[in-house]
Amino acid sequence: MVDVVVLGTVGLDSVETPFGKVENTLGGSATFAAYACSFFAKPGVVSIVGEDFPKHHLSTLEKKMNLDGVERHGKTFRWSGLYEFDMNEAKTLTTELNCLTEFDPVLPLEYRSAKFAFLGNTDPEIQLKVFSQLRCPELVVMDTMNLWITHKKEKLLEMIKKTNVLLLNDGEARQLFETVNLVKAAGKALSLGPTAVIIKKGEHGSLLFTRNSHFSACGYPLEVVKDPTGCGDVFGGAFTGYLAKTMDLSEKNMRKAVVYASAIASFNAEDFSLRRLQELTHPEIEKRFEQMKQMREF
Amino acid sequence: MVDVVVLGTVGLDSVETPFGKVENTLGGSATFAAYACSFFAKPGVVSIVGEDFPKHHLSTLEKKMNLDGVERHGKTFRWSGLYEFDMNEAKTLTTELNCLTEFDPVLPLEYRSAKFAFLGNTDPEIQLKVFSQLRCPELVVMDTMNLWITHKKEKLLEMIKKTNVLLLNDGEARQLFETVNLVKAAGKALSLGPTAVIIKKGEHGSLLFTRNSHFSACGYPLEVVKDPTGCGDVFGGAFTGYLAKTMDLSEKNMRKAVVYASAIASFNAEDFSLRRLQELTHPEIEKRFEQMKQMREF
Repeated sequence: MVDVVVLGTVGLDSVETPFGKVENTLGGSATFAAYACSFFAKPGVVSIVGEDFPKHHLSTLEKKMNLDGVERHGKTFRWSGLYEFDMNEAKTLTTELNCLTEFDPVLPLEYRSAKFAFLGNTDPEIQLKVFSQLRCPELVVMDTMNLWITHKKEKLLEMIKKTNVLLLNDGEARQLFETVNLVKAAGKALSLGPTAVIIKKGEHGSLLFTRNSHFSACGYPLEVVKDPTGCGDVFGGAFTGYLAKTMDLSEKNMRKAVVYASAIASFNAEDFSLRRLQELTHPEIEKRFEQMKQMREF
Repeated sequence: MVDVVVLGTVGLDSVETPFGKVENTLGGSATFAAYACSFFAKPGVVSIVGEDFPKHHLSTLEKKMNLDGVERHGKTFRWSGLYEFDMNEAKTLTTELNCLTEFDPVLPLEYRSAKFAFLGNTDPEIQLKVFSQLRCPELVVMDTMNLWITHKKEKLLEMIKKTNVLLLNDGEARQLFETVNLVKAAGKALSLGPTAVIIKKGEHGSLLFTRNSHFSACGYPLEVVKDPTGCGDVFGGAFTGYLAKTMDLSEKNMRKAVVYASAIASFNAEDFSLRRLQELTHPEIEKRFEQMKQMREF
């Protein structure tokens, strides 16, 4: 059984930051999102990898998630990026889409009745295809990126209209809704249909907007930041997983989900690739959640 | 009687933002800080203006603060700046120091017994001179800027050692303590002597660090941002004023002071110069304080 359908990329990342360098490590939006989701609920991944994709990476993932929805074909998607001292933004050095260009997802039967879905950052046409195969989704959370805003805006808006919770980072929100003002951008997003919009601001935390209120979650101030790659995906996966586990879609519970998602994303930045999440325990998550609560009290 | 000694500049600003343009309006770090302070306690300003400084600006200030510590000599300090769509940072177009270059502050007698001081952004040598004239300060809050970090680091560190609460923005904290990591920067600042360090992050809010804890205050997400000039000074003045009013220097009360300071700073960004603060009422402040509280609850 699968609790949360997680759509996105699974690939190989090469990343350099001021604190180190890794090559061909496990990466991709679905990898980070599904791994983070697995702390709360069982993810089923929808993605594609190449025939060259290392077996040990698959076995790392297999322990935490269902991979029946992962096709194997051609050559694996690869991304390489560089972070300078401003760790909030990666400079993409190379992107090799490879097998992604032929991705035409067909959901395994056991995925179709899942009530929750996280449609991670991919082509909105692919997101729409996956969405259309879900029988009766209760909550669909989607993420996107500037590439699709620029090149596939119509399909993206079509997908947003079917979504319950839209995730965007601040730059994307400004670009998509053509305003510098995040409050106005969120208002425009909500008018398209979603019941909630979350604007991610990297180390500065995130804002959750609903029709009647907004919620501001600060980032956890980290003493060690090695590699923020995947933090946005981790946020989305953990957020959706927490809601799937608790089965409570109230605004109040969404606030809690945002704080859990921020907590797990903050751990992810402490080491490269999935390293930190692979060692992460539930007591550590609860401890940071409590710290984040105390950080806010006055 | 004066509750809070406020040191800083009083001058004339010309500012252009995507939302308008003003020329020769009332500006300067002491202007903004003292005006904000006056919502809670009586400020006494230490500054210098030129003989050309418009009388109506003085009468605007006089209603809210003691100006006995404001010298009049030569030509008024002028600053002009430009904000582009990223409203977080001003581009300075021109700075005319004028009378500031001859500023050698002598505190009026009634200022010397004030228990609270906000030493706004000025030359650390001037800050030290004002500090040395305070008889028995209970709380000294100071602000600074990159210029002094670059050119007067030793004097600046000397001043920080005498300070109870150090305010810095994120870029300055990174520059002064030579680390990208704000948690580490705050640790280094605390090791110099202050009991608290506040790192201001513009629209992203601020972080309050003490030896045992940290507190994260999100910025209030504004629908209208016209001109952020002076928001940092407003923050410092309101923070110090709130503590002077409540006479409670506990960490818990400092957290409250940070939220009040953020609330008042958010109003300041809604219009040019002092315009918004001049119309601001206590019920409005309380309402925004409550909203900021609710924004954080989960």
